Amino acid sequence: MTDWKFRGNRELKTASAFSIARVIGDVKTNLDQSDERPIIPLSIGDPSIFSCFRTAQVAEDAVVDALRSANFNGYAPKGGALQPRRSLAEYLSSNLPYKLSPDDVYVTVGAKQAIEVVLSALRRPDANILLPKPGYPAYEALSVMNHLQVRHFDLVQEKNWEVDLNGVQALADDKTVAMVIINPGNPCGNVYTRDHLKEIAETARRLGILVIADEAYAHLTFGSNPFVPMGLFGNIAPVLTLGSLSKRWMVPGWRIGWIARSDPDGIFEKQGIVDCIRRSLITNTEPATFIQAALPQILEKTTDDFFVKAVNVLRKDADMCYERLKKIPCFTCLQKPQGSLFLMVKLDMSQLQDINDDMDFCSKLAKEESVILLPGFVLRMKNWVRVTFGIEPAALEDGLARVKAFCLRHAATSKC
Amino acid sequence: MTDWKFRGNRELKTASAFSIARVIGDVKTNLDQSDERPIIPLSIGDPSIFSCFRTAQVAEDAVVDALRSANFNGYAPKGGALQPRRSLAEYLSSNLPYKLSPDDVYVTVGAKQAIEVVLSALRRPDANILLPKPGYPAYEALSVMNHLQVRHFDLVQEKNWEVDLNGVQALADDKTVAMVIINPGNPCGNVYTRDHLKEIAETARRLGILVIADEAYAHLTFGSNPFVPMGLFGNIAPVLTLGSLSKRWMVPGWRIGWIARSDPDGIFEKQGIVDCIRRSLITNTEPATFIQAALPQILEKTTDDFFVKAVNVLRKDADMCYERLKKIPCFTCLQKPQGSLFLMVKLDMSQLQDINDDMDFCSKLAKEESVILLPGFVLRMKNWVRVTFGIEPAALEDGLARVKAFCLRHAATSKC
Repeated sequence: MTDWKFRGNRELKTASAFSIARVIGDVKTNLDQSDERPIIPLSIGDPSIFSCFRTAQVAEDAVVDALRSANFNGYAPKGGALQPRRSLAEYLSSNLPYKLSPDDVYVTVGAKQAIEVVLSALRRPDANILLPKPGYPAYEALSVMNHLQVRHFDLVQEKNWEVDLNGVQALADDKTVAMVIINPGNPCGNVYTRDHLKEIAETARRLGILVIADEAYAHLTFGSNPFVPMGLFGNIAPVLTLGSLSKRWMVPGWRIGWIARSDPDGIFEKQGIVDCIRRSLITNTEPATFIQAALPQILEKTTDDFFVKAVNVLRKDADMCYERLKKIPCFTCLQKPQGSLFLMVKLDMSQLQDINDDMDFCSKLAKEESVILLPGFVLRMKNWVRVTFGIEPAALEDGLARVKAFCLRHAATSKC
Repeated sequence: MTDWKFRGNRELKTASAFSIARVIGDVKTNLDQSDERPIIPLSIGDPSIFSCFRTAQVAEDAVVDALRSANFNGYAPKGGALQPRRSLAEYLSSNLPYKLSPDDVYVTVGAKQAIEVVLSALRRPDANILLPKPGYPAYEALSVMNHLQVRHFDLVQEKNWEVDLNGVQALADDKTVAMVIINPGNPCGNVYTRDHLKEIAETARRLGILVIADEAYAHLTFGSNPFVPMGLFGNIAPVLTLGSLSKRWMVPGWRIGWIARSDPDGIFEKQGIVDCIRRSLITNTEPATFIQAALPQILEKTTDDFFVKAVNVLRKDADMCYERLKKIPCFTCLQKPQGSLFLMVKLDMSQLQDINDDMDFCSKLAKEESVILLPGFVLRMKNWVRVTFGIEPAALEDGLARVKAFCLRHAATSKC
């Protein structure tokens, strides 16, 4: 009998414990195969499967042209070829007071790999990182894998999910290297004001830490606050901005993202971060070369009507979602979402019977109504749920009606 | 003056020290811009830029069709959708005595990410891994990042670069978890016999370790030894096979690879490796969905004439390369390559004047002849060079003539 010496790794178990994909997988195991109604996915941010959110024709053409040219079947340089980086630098500079150079930009396999690259560049013994609560679990997973101790600061619901800056100050110490903000907000659907972003930068400067600005949902805003890039305040504290084509172009499956350095004072260079980002890109893999090669066409040729149409559907979706959910007594959602594809809803457990917690709520909802929501515990918000409104409006309406029916059926009192 | 607390990470410096991309970048800085001759890239394995190696039309069409359908712009399941996995299982089973199931196969962002996923699944305190010398530096880099201590076993040149199995036995201890083989061989161009692969499996079983079989160059063979998949011996020791479309289809830029488990006795499941691979895939990112979706068409519809044509060009290239190089007195290359895109050549420094070492050789060659070779030190073979013959034959001929002229010019004696 051979004594096999290899076995699975524990860190991975910790790292993947808070995984959206995993938890949604668990929720879906409850689906009732005999329900003939369509499944309504209100759990992940992927509008691409709905025809009203089909990507721009020019973007699709750009990828086909790059592929058909046969010039982009080979390896791409680490961090991306010059043309795509130049085009990205131009695109990202359009609402900054200074110009990014192609050297300030790296192409990544979606924003997910951008997180991996940045966190692996930052890791060092005993370092810690400040993450928002609620936030996006990939930061936690990749922090664990990169030996960065995680500390959570609160987003304050009553203040439109602004960062609790006093909390940030209290959490930080000599070993704190960075704080993460996600704007427009995932999972809260909030959009930070220019003033608040400036306060964040000032706090980061006081603490001597950098800001990782996750702008995966950049430009997907439909409320009173416009999208303001964190890079605007790179002169106060250095900023690494993470973004991707995924959401604005509705192509999360294309796996093209980026990292941009907003650091007019050259602090990243001085602190060795630029070198480490390059080295991290070397140990990682690249996005498909022909999709990278399509970036200039995509960024320069997509016309406003595509963006306006998508944002108009999202605005309608956000309004409908907010109006319907706030009428469900066991739900609390204080703010209408102003951006991204999500909002957070608090469950009032006292108004529900035979439901134990958020996971139980989502599991039974999947079983009885074929609607998928994300349990809040995976975002460290027990007894909350994250709702995605970024789907086709008729399907959203159908899904919300089913959620309401479910809540009424499980109401503890006549009030719900 | 702000005291910035973040700084770059040291492990990354160690990990990326042995990087092919980085060293080739260094060699290229020596190129003479005034040389009007084309640069001849004999350093990396990327034939895709030459028209004689253009990928199969059916493969290109499959990707375009998947993209144009607009059904594959969204997120793919972690590890790949069922259809591509089923198709891969079928493809990989074709020369195995048993059938792989779709659950035995995971789709990755090229073979590079397959390495990352497997090594992160294996890491645990104090574990070590056995790597071939010469080998492929990404294994070293990703072992460092995953805290796996690296131990090198030799490939024996005189025995057609077979694994020194006594050396493996001597290196292994209680903390050894795996050994890596690369077959067909990168960088040596050798192809292992069925008997040798069986001996490797038996050694692994004795040691209680798994075999990571890097088959990135599977089917690219043109000598007397046919390609035999390591999975054939999965009943002796469990095997994780890494592969990709990159080389056989000449599309390294498409970034589609895979991991396959050859383990009829279910040892990976029992040891927690299957769970860890899944978890590692969750913390990583996926290849582009529409390229994944094209896999069934690509694997099932590419006809033999495409493969035969490519292998015929490679055979001609390998013959020419071997014949020309062995006539250069300061070079030693014992075997004609039988597979992959590479061979290793030993420099006899005593026959060269004003050349200090392999890096110096490659730097001066780049400067004087606009030919790029890979210095062996990055493969832990000081004063060797790796030569890629997988390019268009006329360009190869030109490049080899320039290498010869360079060697004659730098000959220490009249013999060279």
